[in-house]
Amino acid sequence: MVDTKQRSSTRSTTIDPILDASIDTGPIKTVGDPTAPTVNVEQLGRQLLGTWADVRLAAREVTARPDMQRIEGLSMADHRLRVLEQLKVLAANGHVLRAFPKHLGGHDDHGGNIAGFEELVIADPSLQIKGGVQWGLFGAAVLHLGTKNHHDKYLPGIMDLSVPGAFAMTEIGHGSDVASIGTTATFDAETGEFVINTPFRAAWKDYLGNAAKDGIAAVLFAQLITQGVNHGVHAFYVPIRGADGTFLPGIGGEDDGLKGGLNGIDNGRLHFDDVRIPRENLLNRYGDVAEDGTYTSPISSPGRRFFTMLGTLVQGRVSLDGAATAASALALTIAITYGSQRRQFTAGSDTDEEVILDYQRHQRRLFPRLATTYAQTFAHDEFLVKFDEVFSGKADTDDDRQDLETLAAALKPLSTWHALDTLQEAREACGGAGFLAENRLVGLRADLDIFATFEGDNNVLLQLVAKRLLTDYSRKFATADAGALARYVVQHAAGRAYHGTGLRTLGQTVFDRGSTARSVGALRDADVQRELLTDRVESMIGEVAGKLRGATKLPKKQAADLFNAHQNELIEAARAHGELLQWESFTRALDAPMDSGTRQVLTWLRDLFGLGLVEKNLAWYLIHGRLSAQRAQAVTAYIDRLIARIRPYALDLVDAFGYSPDHLRATIASGIEAERQAEARDYYAEQRASGSAPAAEKPAVKPARK
Amino acid sequence: MVDTKQRSSTRSTTIDPILDASIDTGPIKTVGDPTAPTVNVEQLGRQLLGTWADVRLAAREVTARPDMQRIEGLSMADHRLRVLEQLKVLAANGHVLRAFPKHLGGHDDHGGNIAGFEELVIADPSLQIKGGVQWGLFGAAVLHLGTKNHHDKYLPGIMDLSVPGAFAMTEIGHGSDVASIGTTATFDAETGEFVINTPFRAAWKDYLGNAAKDGIAAVLFAQLITQGVNHGVHAFYVPIRGADGTFLPGIGGEDDGLKGGLNGIDNGRLHFDDVRIPRENLLNRYGDVAEDGTYTSPISSPGRRFFTMLGTLVQGRVSLDGAATAASALALTIAITYGSQRRQFTAGSDTDEEVILDYQRHQRRLFPRLATTYAQTFAHDEFLVKFDEVFSGKADTDDDRQDLETLAAALKPLSTWHALDTLQEAREACGGAGFLAENRLVGLRADLDIFATFEGDNNVLLQLVAKRLLTDYSRKFATADAGALARYVVQHAAGRAYHGTGLRTLGQTVFDRGSTARSVGALRDADVQRELLTDRVESMIGEVAGKLRGATKLPKKQAADLFNAHQNELIEAARAHGELLQWESFTRALDAPMDSGTRQVLTWLRDLFGLGLVEKNLAWYLIHGRLSAQRAQAVTAYIDRLIARIRPYALDLVDAFGYSPDHLRATIASGIEAERQAEARDYYAEQRASGSAPAAEKPAVKPARK
Repeated sequence: MVDTKQRSSTRSTTIDPILDASIDTGPIKTVGDPTAPTVNVEQLGRQLLGTWADVRLAAREVTARPDMQRIEGLSMADHRLRVLEQLKVLAANGHVLRAFPKHLGGHDDHGGNIAGFEELVIADPSLQIKGGVQWGLFGAAVLHLGTKNHHDKYLPGIMDLSVPGAFAMTEIGHGSDVASIGTTATFDAETGEFVINTPFRAAWKDYLGNAAKDGIAAVLFAQLITQGVNHGVHAFYVPIRGADGTFLPGIGGEDDGLKGGLNGIDNGRLHFDDVRIPRENLLNRYGDVAEDGTYTSPISSPGRRFFTMLGTLVQGRVSLDGAATAASALALTIAITYGSQRRQFTAGSDTDEEVILDYQRHQRRLFPRLATTYAQTFAHDEFLVKFDEVFSGKADTDDDRQDLETLAAALKPLSTWHALDTLQEAREACGGAGFLAENRLVGLRADLDIFATFEGDNNVLLQLVAKRLLTDYSRKFATADAGALARYVVQHAAGRAYHGTGLRTLGQTVFDRGSTARSVGALRDADVQRELLTDRVESMIGEVAGKLRGATKLPKKQAADLFNAHQNELIEAARAHGELLQWESFTRALDAPMDSGTRQVLTWLRDLFGLGLVEKNLAWYLIHGRLSAQRAQAVTAYIDRLIARIRPYALDLVDAFGYSPDHLRATIASGIEAERQAEARDYYAEQRASGSAPAAEKPAVKPARK
Repeated sequence: MVDTKQRSSTRSTTIDPILDASIDTGPIKTVGDPTAPTVNVEQLGRQLLGTWADVRLAAREVTARPDMQRIEGLSMADHRLRVLEQLKVLAANGHVLRAFPKHLGGHDDHGGNIAGFEELVIADPSLQIKGGVQWGLFGAAVLHLGTKNHHDKYLPGIMDLSVPGAFAMTEIGHGSDVASIGTTATFDAETGEFVINTPFRAAWKDYLGNAAKDGIAAVLFAQLITQGVNHGVHAFYVPIRGADGTFLPGIGGEDDGLKGGLNGIDNGRLHFDDVRIPRENLLNRYGDVAEDGTYTSPISSPGRRFFTMLGTLVQGRVSLDGAATAASALALTIAITYGSQRRQFTAGSDTDEEVILDYQRHQRRLFPRLATTYAQTFAHDEFLVKFDEVFSGKADTDDDRQDLETLAAALKPLSTWHALDTLQEAREACGGAGFLAENRLVGLRADLDIFATFEGDNNVLLQLVAKRLLTDYSRKFATADAGALARYVVQHAAGRAYHGTGLRTLGQTVFDRGSTARSVGALRDADVQRELLTDRVESMIGEVAGKLRGATKLPKKQAADLFNAHQNELIEAARAHGELLQWESFTRALDAPMDSGTRQVLTWLRDLFGLGLVEKNLAWYLIHGRLSAQRAQAVTAYIDRLIARIRPYALDLVDAFGYSPDHLRATIASGIEAERQAEARDYYAEQRASGSAPAAEKPAVKPARK
């Protein structure tokens, strides 16, 4: 038998003496060393499962079932059929219906619903997303935007999948700017009907799951017009196909055809030509039209009403954050398992090739992404708790809802980009084997590609976050006491002085800020990391706020140009804010009860995440006098040190994600590489032992006759 | 008719006053402004086509043919059949056979051959790569490693595709470390045959194009063993399948099945069990075995012999550099065309939505990648000229060959990673439309994914570059005069002083280096950019060389560990070297004859590339005292300025790549978006003009009855 788990590197990595003596530079302790910490994988695994651990474990039983999993290489038509059948299984077992009302067979359990649902990405992202379309968008819109009559009439068919439906919001011409969609629903008081129209080609609904083939109804978003007034975007329940599967009169559509991934979903386009639906089909929780055409709403501001309606649909972003994180964890499990078995090049020996995970570059490629995946896992669980509190009504103020949406807008971009980046790095780290479909990395990457732009384009979402941060910032100073303002002015002035007079002032600035990074060793201090990360977000926002001051007094065009000239900075500030939130979640996770060995290793991983963020933005810290050049250099040296420290625990840290071979389903993560390596090494060892190995060529052979 | 080309932004972008007065901060001049520069697109296009412009134009006629293009959504089996048929067309038209000997119907034209060949990526990367396997690897190995008998016997069938073949080098267990492959070819003097064996599972040949289905022969790489001595890796011509398409006795294999892309190629595995081939099947240009089993070689050093043999196969890397650059250009043409038509959000107007290419963030996402693609295009042409000189024998010294290989190892990683990055950013910049197969970005990205790890893993290649740079560095000091050494010592000492005593010294260092970046305006100076970029490469290599000094005296294991502790730094230094080479090519391209307007815009683009590299590594320049904090900040501000300047020329710059709609084949780049936008705007304008537009809701509506 081959030991496929080479948990500890025997390499005693040599590290440069680091500039500051406060960091110990002794040899890295390995697992074999009795004084080295050990990780309690089971305990850590339970912590990673989070608040809805049991729901996740139940979902993982489903995702381990072969009949629920993706088969690589199916045609688009067959893949669509298979996913539809799998959806029926989900409807039957009811796990994914937890969020629906109890009296209809659900559990009113919003957090648990998402926790179970996002696990489906491991079986097949098409299954996850098609389920998301049916129950998380189409069904959730009826639930959250409709009222009791709608629930009783429509939800049973939605829940049991007898009515597959589309979520018809996005148009060819309007994705992120939903408020500007072109589809109209004009109330005709004479017949008591809404008349749905697609006024031009750009107003065709597009990219809708279930629209190309399976959908027989849709929740349609349109401009509600009654009595000559446009009351903005509202949702309507619209039947689209008859019993024979063809479009109802006035409705047409197209298949979006092959996509870069998620080909188990039948995305398509819809358009409407004088399609009449009863007045009651308006999902009227936030706006209603009386028989005579009078419009009423519990929310008087059209803008607030619109954002309230859209806010009920935040769960899509929540679940993408979770699914993207799960896919990243899976990818790293595959790549780190393979990397701990694969050998290439003899560097420190004449006969034994190195395990590739012992190469510094390989560690640099995978471990920081592992740290980020941990941070995201902890941040996601807190995010899900917040979501559950809002949707269960436990904590459901306007502020709570706004915080939730800002959190979603900050976290979803980071985790979805991270998943693409991690899947790609894992693919490359597995070489040619990573490119084979049987090893899953390429398929997952293709499927998750669209996560970066659906449910809100990542760049647009980050801009929303930035705008919220700017608003908070100006509010803070609207109500600030004199002391706060004075401190701001002083800081601002200090910044100016430094900009004006250059480096000598910078030097003083660094030393004045004694609490930050007084010594390199302090980089290990959570408070120092927090201050570095927080300070950057606040300073970036403050800086842009200063530049935008007075923009409100400018003509609209000039104000827009001024804002646009800082758009990139703002988006970077929002990213920094999201990263800070992730870092804070990771740091809070260290407070959970755990043994000291696990805490030690997890703290290294948190430090790697935090200092990785500092390293990525090192120029900012240098320019703004937050770190001296010497300390900035020590950041990189300390990261190298952390990476070497984490090496012996890399397999423990991915094992704690808890994916079994039935979830991984990647040949190269099955232990086969260790078997092959052992076979090859045995072959050469036997040759050497028996003296049957051919001799190496002598340095000089006879010159050839030419 | 709709004007689908909105060449100039009417936006007068507002930019922060930049800190240094030497940069003008007036409004950006647009094309409408008679004093603004204009780009001569045709002239620029000819320059971009490079040295083999006519060959490229002829190849583009082929890639514009529908029968030569990829059809999205074909099954793997159908895609393989289609590509094989397309290969027959290429064989018949002879364009891709330019590199073969004249007496066999070729042209001995090595540069032209690659120039035409790499254009095929635009039709279908599977076609390009399968052609590359047949003629660029299998055929080229016979040509460059074989001798006249082999040429006359094998090349005709290879050229006309009657003998499709595999290039059987990589094994499951050894990709980048070719010297360690396990397959053996043991000479049996009694029968005058080589006996081929696969001694263990890891020695199976893998990922070989043509191996799963079409190949009837292979060039096989194996350890040549004769008279009990292993003479290292050599190439052998081995028939693998009979006329009936089944494997010959002793040979077995497997299909690699579905991959992340390139599914028009039948990659597979091969293994050999006592397969006997005649002695004459050894491709014996660099090593031969006589009838009695005596080994001879014109190259006495086994190491040099191995690298000489592998060096003859550098053309794969050359063509990947060109194909990756072409795919990047195509992706940017699609995304920038669409971005100049697509509108979203009203920012500066009540009615007109903004063209998304006018958003700063969108520009920041696309224009730096455009600048890099230009740099790569110019660098690739010079690389191809160098390749042609070596392979035609015009300049074919050992140094020339080594330089060519280092160039290949430096440029191929950068351009292949850039293509993946650019295709992804272009995909995201086109939103959901970018995810549809019909818009080509996802398919190209999937196909090019493997470029990052085949023909040499990118990280391994960059490490090779770093080792060459280290060797050159130590050689330089072995022969340095006292003055050079003194200068080095002074620089090094200055560095030390700064590391030791901190920022005050840093300040002096900055000001002492008066020639570099004396003012922000100097950033526009090519010599300043060159010095910044060159200095960084030299300093990084010098720094690591200092740390590795004495490593040769350490025991092997410790030396390897010491090297490994700096592996990441070394690879980053190699990357910086490659980027410098690209920058130098771009800068030389500005010396070509061109009108002043084109030169102006191209210079902005070069500056964007150069300063983008400085910005990416700003922390390094700050830490090492090459830029003051104030100047570092100005780098970003000046990049923002350059991006706004380039905006009006973005369409010209992608049009100059010269791809017609037949090459683009992306619905969203066809002008359809401009038509849809115009239709929507006309609809609303008509409503406003006729007074039929519904009124907007008044701020407060009646409260709802609850």
